[in-house]
Amino acid sequence: MSSVIYLDNAATTRVSPEVVSRMLPYFSDHYGNPSSPHALGRAALDALESARSLVAQRFGVPLQSVIFTSGGTESNNLAILGVARKRKSGHIVTSRIEHPSVLEVCRQLEHEGFSVTYLAVSSEGLVSLDDVSRAVRDDTILVSIQHANNEIGTLQPIADIARVCKRLGVPFHTDVVQSFCREPIVLGDGQWMISLSAHKINGPKGVGALVCNGVLPDAIVFGGGQEGVRSGTENVAGIVGFAAAVELYPKDASEKMRFLRDRLIAELLRIPDARLNGSSFHRLSSNVHVSFRLIDSTTLIEHLSQEGICASAGSACHSARLQASHVLDAIGLSPEWSHGALRLSLSPETTEVEVDGAAESVRRIVSDLREAYGSRHHRAV
Amino acid sequence: MSSVIYLDNAATTRVSPEVVSRMLPYFSDHYGNPSSPHALGRAALDALESARSLVAQRFGVPLQSVIFTSGGTESNNLAILGVARKRKSGHIVTSRIEHPSVLEVCRQLEHEGFSVTYLAVSSEGLVSLDDVSRAVRDDTILVSIQHANNEIGTLQPIADIARVCKRLGVPFHTDVVQSFCREPIVLGDGQWMISLSAHKINGPKGVGALVCNGVLPDAIVFGGGQEGVRSGTENVAGIVGFAAAVELYPKDASEKMRFLRDRLIAELLRIPDARLNGSSFHRLSSNVHVSFRLIDSTTLIEHLSQEGICASAGSACHSARLQASHVLDAIGLSPEWSHGALRLSLSPETTEVEVDGAAESVRRIVSDLREAYGSRHHRAV
Repeated sequence: MSSVIYLDNAATTRVSPEVVSRMLPYFSDHYGNPSSPHALGRAALDALESARSLVAQRFGVPLQSVIFTSGGTESNNLAILGVARKRKSGHIVTSRIEHPSVLEVCRQLEHEGFSVTYLAVSSEGLVSLDDVSRAVRDDTILVSIQHANNEIGTLQPIADIARVCKRLGVPFHTDVVQSFCREPIVLGDGQWMISLSAHKINGPKGVGALVCNGVLPDAIVFGGGQEGVRSGTENVAGIVGFAAAVELYPKDASEKMRFLRDRLIAELLRIPDARLNGSSFHRLSSNVHVSFRLIDSTTLIEHLSQEGICASAGSACHSARLQASHVLDAIGLSPEWSHGALRLSLSPETTEVEVDGAAESVRRIVSDLREAYGSRHHRAV
Repeated sequence: MSSVIYLDNAATTRVSPEVVSRMLPYFSDHYGNPSSPHALGRAALDALESARSLVAQRFGVPLQSVIFTSGGTESNNLAILGVARKRKSGHIVTSRIEHPSVLEVCRQLEHEGFSVTYLAVSSEGLVSLDDVSRAVRDDTILVSIQHANNEIGTLQPIADIARVCKRLGVPFHTDVVQSFCREPIVLGDGQWMISLSAHKINGPKGVGALVCNGVLPDAIVFGGGQEGVRSGTENVAGIVGFAAAVELYPKDASEKMRFLRDRLIAELLRIPDARLNGSSFHRLSSNVHVSFRLIDSTTLIEHLSQEGICASAGSACHSARLQASHVLDAIGLSPEWSHGALRLSLSPETTEVEVDGAAESVRRIVSDLREAYGSRHHRAV
C-alpha cells in the first residue's frame, strides 16, 4: 500500500503505529476486566482511568465527565436521545447539515412526539447565531450543532453558540468528531456535551467518548453501568489507543494541513468549471471539498482509486447509497455541481508531493472525462 | 505476569496472540472505512464480510442475519429494546437470573409500560419449560432466556425453549455470551436472536454480534445504518479479531475444561463447609462456582490475588458494587453461604498445574481465615 495517496481522512484514518504499540499490551498481557477485583483487573482499571484523565484534562472537566463509548455515533445518540428521554418531551434545535447520527436521532424523536427545528445554513454552510437564538423556545431542551461539517468542512462558531445557549439556559451539544485535536474547542462553563471519536485522529475504530459538563443524559443502553450511564465491558485496548491518539496528535498538524489544504484548493480551482464548496475562512484545516461541473463524481473517484488515490464524494456513511448529499442540498448547490463533488481530506502525515500528485491526477481525469463526454455528446449530435 | 493463574475467564479472557496478529493489519495497513468507495475501503469491506460469513455459517443463517455490535450488552439491548420498540407494547418473559444487560432493559421497559414476567429458577438455577410455556400470553412479544449463567454456569435448555417458543409463535432471544464456542447452540428454524461477545472467547473487548433468524429488531441507535439496524463505523480490526477468535477457538476445549472443572470442583468440595452452586450436570464446561460457609469472599479473593490467582465472587459487572448477587438470591442461597461465593472460570489455556495450585491456595486461605476468625471469636467470648 506504499504507493497509495490516502486523502479520505474524514472517513477514517490510519492508526498510527505508536498508537498500536501502546494498545498491544492490553490485548494479551494486561487483559483484565476493569471491574474485576484482582491484579489484572486493577491494571486494566488504571489504564482506563489514565485515559479518562487525559481526555478530561483536554476539556478542563472532572474525571466523571468523560463517558467512553463505542464511537461518535453512539456519543451523538447518547447525548441527544439521552437528554430527550430524561426530559420526556420538548423541542430540539439542530441544523440541516448535521451528521446522520444526529439527524436520524432527531427524526426518531419527532416520531416520539418531540419537535425539532432544523436550522438552514448559508451558502457557505454556516448556521446563524441569530437563528439559533430565535429558534430557542420555552420548551427547548437541547441545541445540537456540529463543529466541523464532515462533508464540506465548514466550522460553526460553537464557542458563540455555547454562549448563547448558556444565556438562554439550554444545554448545548456539539459533534466535534471532525475537528477534535485540529481546531480549538472552548465552550466555557455552561451546560454542554461534546462527541468524540478515536478513528478520525489516527486512533482505532470502535471507540469514542461523550464529555459532559453540567448536564448528564439518561442511559440509552442498559446493563452493568460500567461507565455510569453507559453499559458494557469497557474496550480497554481501544480506550488506551484513543488516549494515545489524543496525546500523540502533532501539535503543529493544523498549521501544516492548512498550508497543504490551501495549496490543493488553489491547484484544483485552476481546473475549468471547478468551485470550492463550504467556506474559505471558516474551514476545517484538513478539508478540501470541490465540485466539477457536469462531472460524475462516482466515475472520478473510481478513476482516482485506480491510480492509487483514495478520495470520496462526501461522507463515507452515504457513499454506499446513491442519494444526493443533504449537505450539498442545504447549501443550495444545483445538481450539475453536486453530482461532481469531490472531498479530499488530509491527515498530519499528508505530504506536499501527495497533494500535488492528487491535484495533477484530478486535473487529468476531469479533463479526460470531459473530453470523452464531449466526443460522445458530439457523436450523439 | 507469567506467574499469574488467571481463573476469571467469565469476566474476560486473554486475547490470543494469533487473534492479535490477524487484527494488526487492519490498524495501520488496511485501515479504510468499509463504506468508502476506493481500494482501502474495499479491503476493509472484504474483511468485514469474511468475518460476517464465518459467524453466519456457524449458525446456518444468511449473511444479513449477522449484525456486528460493540459487545454483548449492546446485543442484548438491541434484541430486547429493539423488538419492544417495534411492537410498541406487550409482554416479555425472562428469568430472574439473567445478566444485568437483560434485566435492566426489562426494568426500563416496565417503566415504559411493558409488562415483564421474571421466571423463578430451581435451586440449581434451572428455568422450567412448563413455566416458560405457562408464562406466554396472547400479548407476549418476546421470550429472553440466557444459555449459560455468567455467575453459576447453569445451562438452560435453550433448544427446548426455542421449540416451545416456535410452537407458541413467539420470538426467542438468548444471551449465549458465556457459552458460545463452548456448548452446542442449535435453535432450529423458528424466530430467534442470539447475543455474542468476542472478549469471552479470547477475542478483543468492544465487539460482539446479534444474530437474527426470522425476526429483526428496530434500531436503538440511529445514524448511517452501516450494519442495517445498527449505526456507527464498523470496528473492522475488532470484527476481524472476533471472527479469528471464533475460528481459532480449540475444538477440544470443552472436553478439556470439563475435566479440569470437575477436578477443581472435587478438590474444593474436600474443604469443610463447602458447597457447589448451580448444577452438576447442566453446567458450563468452564465454570466452577462454590461457596464456603461463613467466609467473606472479598477477603478470600484479595488473598488469592496476592498469591497471583485471579478469581471473582460472581460477575465482574457486580463486583465493584457491594450488593448481594441476584443470581444467588434466586437459587435460594442463604447469606451465610452467598457471602462466601467464589467463581473460578477456566479457559482453553488453563492447565492441570494451575487448577491444582488454585485449589491448594483456596484450601489454605479458607483454613487460615477460619482459624483467624475462630481465634478472634474465641477472644471475644
